[in-house]
Amino acid sequence: MKKMEEKILAEGKILPGGVLKVGSFLNQQIDTVFMREIGEEIAELFKDSGATKILTIEASGIPIAVSAGFAMNLPVVYAKKNKSSNISGDCYSTLVHSFTHGNKNNVIVTKEYISSDDKILIVDDFLAHGSALTGLIEICEMAGAEVVGCCAAIEKGFQLGGDRLREQGYRIESLAIVDEMTDTEIIFREQ
Amino acid sequence: MKKMEEKILAEGKILPGGVLKVGSFLNQQIDTVFMREIGEEIAELFKDSGATKILTIEASGIPIAVSAGFAMNLPVVYAKKNKSSNISGDCYSTLVHSFTHGNKNNVIVTKEYISSDDKILIVDDFLAHGSALTGLIEICEMAGAEVVGCCAAIEKGFQLGGDRLREQGYRIESLAIVDEMTDTEIIFREQ
Repeated sequence: MKKMEEKILAEGKILPGGVLKVGSFLNQQIDTVFMREIGEEIAELFKDSGATKILTIEASGIPIAVSAGFAMNLPVVYAKKNKSSNISGDCYSTLVHSFTHGNKNNVIVTKEYISSDDKILIVDDFLAHGSALTGLIEICEMAGAEVVGCCAAIEKGFQLGGDRLREQGYRIESLAIVDEMTDTEIIFREQ
Repeated sequence: MKKMEEKILAEGKILPGGVLKVGSFLNQQIDTVFMREIGEEIAELFKDSGATKILTIEASGIPIAVSAGFAMNLPVVYAKKNKSSNISGDCYSTLVHSFTHGNKNNVIVTKEYISSDDKILIVDDFLAHGSALTGLIEICEMAGAEVVGCCAAIEKGFQLGGDRLREQGYRIESLAIVDEMTDTEIIFREQ
């Protein structure tokens, strides 16, 4: 998505530790005009996927999932993060490591909101090491639901999570893939 | 909003401790067709408010804010919750008590995303004791921004936060106000 690359170049900020800050339009502050276009782009990419539900993870995945849900007329479910080890029996949960925050969270979805009849499209804002996405895929497997694809707004290709999941056979689409990032330059993968 | 009352009666579950669970359509799982109508209803209510930006709080306020932002063509900002006392100088923050979870969180907004030129419409899923809303209003005051109104999808009128804020002169609109809730019955306020 050319416009995602342009937005990253215009408004993204590179912080120490390989962090790409896009809080001015994608997370924290949301450019709703652009967010609508993101949803429509995801709908176009996955129009033949047969998806019945969109799954994401709080909090920054939610705007993207809602926009895609609007464009595809699909319900959205978001997983919650929880540090507590006390998970009730009516939830699917898995432990996910956050490289950004250097901690671990349980990722939790109430069982009644995802079933073996569902074909799930997973969306999130960032795909880096792939931990969150892998956790969401695991939850779909626990529920017996089929994962028809995953879509990230921005993939950090140099952190390899996306390519690892592609090698496992998942359909992974990212609206922009950053293959290299220095203090002064961002290089996108040709798509 | 008649349909909000109907949805609550059809799908809401009353849990011990005055908790009204609406995870099947409003938070955790989102009925995107209904969520679009919620956004349009908020846009209609606040069409003459002069709002320049919508402010909410993660995570369950985000779908409502995004839908209202789509309907009103306004950017959305969401406050983050953080237990840490270590808040950086580039953020506005205030301490908010959660009655539901029995804990306290810092509510944080990066300074660059809210300014003294902004006229802010605050939205959230629930308005009960009014702690989250009060925290968001405080953050707007810190930024010198004007609060033109607040809108909750569901207000628990018997927990008095909404009426307290109305008495202070704020325009508070709720799409449904639950004035009484027993194990078997939900009574809405006439609006």
